[in-house]
Amino acid sequence: MMNAYIKDKIAKVVKSLKVKSSELISSYEEGYIGKKVYRVTLNDGSTRICEQITKNKSNGDAVVIIPITLDGNFVMIIESRPNTLGTVALEFPAGMVDKGENFETAAKRELLEETGYAATEIYELESHYQDQGCSKAIIKTYVALGCRKLQEKNLDDGERLEYIEMSYDDILELIKGDSKELKINDANSKIAFMEYTLKKKGIL
Amino acid sequence: MMNAYIKDKIAKVVKSLKVKSSELISSYEEGYIGKKVYRVTLNDGSTRICEQITKNKSNGDAVVIIPITLDGNFVMIIESRPNTLGTVALEFPAGMVDKGENFETAAKRELLEETGYAATEIYELESHYQDQGCSKAIIKTYVALGCRKLQEKNLDDGERLEYIEMSYDDILELIKGDSKELKINDANSKIAFMEYTLKKKGIL
Repeated sequence: MMNAYIKDKIAKVVKSLKVKSSELISSYEEGYIGKKVYRVTLNDGSTRICEQITKNKSNGDAVVIIPITLDGNFVMIIESRPNTLGTVALEFPAGMVDKGENFETAAKRELLEETGYAATEIYELESHYQDQGCSKAIIKTYVALGCRKLQEKNLDDGERLEYIEMSYDDILELIKGDSKELKINDANSKIAFMEYTLKKKGIL
Repeated sequence: MMNAYIKDKIAKVVKSLKVKSSELISSYEEGYIGKKVYRVTLNDGSTRICEQITKNKSNGDAVVIIPITLDGNFVMIIESRPNTLGTVALEFPAGMVDKGENFETAAKRELLEETGYAATEIYELESHYQDQGCSKAIIKTYVALGCRKLQEKNLDDGERLEYIEMSYDDILELIKGDSKELKINDANSKIAFMEYTLKKKGIL
């Protein structure tokens, strides 16, 4: 258990730095990436301008899924990622939560759309903020067990990807990144796999 | 070692999905968050519009630092994060790489600015893309050893934070998040701490 001194110190700072009020002063919504700009006042009386990224006019909430097949293989996707070095990346299936959709439904939908696989059981790991300074987006991680091929994949416009089955050890190797060419660099995929591993080993 | 079939399949997909050419078609640069919009053509002949977030007119490259003091404590910061639930967050020190600065220099600078601590030794863990679909930003993680208080902190305009020393087990508890109020949700802090832990345990 965390000691009382630390808890007390954190509580005091949290109280003084909490948002007292915020006011939307402008927004930019054109195409996929947009932003909202707020004037924020904290409990300590200080004010600042705070910009928040939006995606498709939403906060950008998303899911990442670790799909495990009946015979223990992991399903990963190889996706076009024009922004980053190499421009193609290995990741777990993932995608944004649709308006009005809950996270678990989004996880099952994205798994089916991106791979054509469906799970017999799905459970939630942890969640995280992808970019806590500049975005409201929360990412939830799911483990999908008993996955089997149900249908062909069904991609969104502009999405270009293929799926591939591999072993747990293959992924560990890709996370370690001993190879310069084949490496998992995607934050959400790394968090998902590391949390899964730390829980499996009883550390988390 | 990954088997040859998987390596070969990945290589083929990577080849077909690589960017063949891209053309900047517009950009938006006002305030902190901006974007660039590209028309991208892949090797398979398909084209798409690809938007890329910019921060302060840069790619948004950044560092996250795990500072460990001479007596084995970890230094964390409690920062105003108006965008996310709670609006105050526990994180490791972190910040953007300045124009022309290298990552390691940025790590030392951010550590000093945000906490007033300096390290006797600093080493790099892994790196990751914070938002591989929408950003070029690469985040490098550093472990800073032998940290001691050197000066008062020296924050950027609008930055509101305090630092706090705690034990490894305290952070593990905050990552596990058994407490609803005190929890580390920041992607970069989670990746840093989980990689540090997996390496310490000999798993990565």
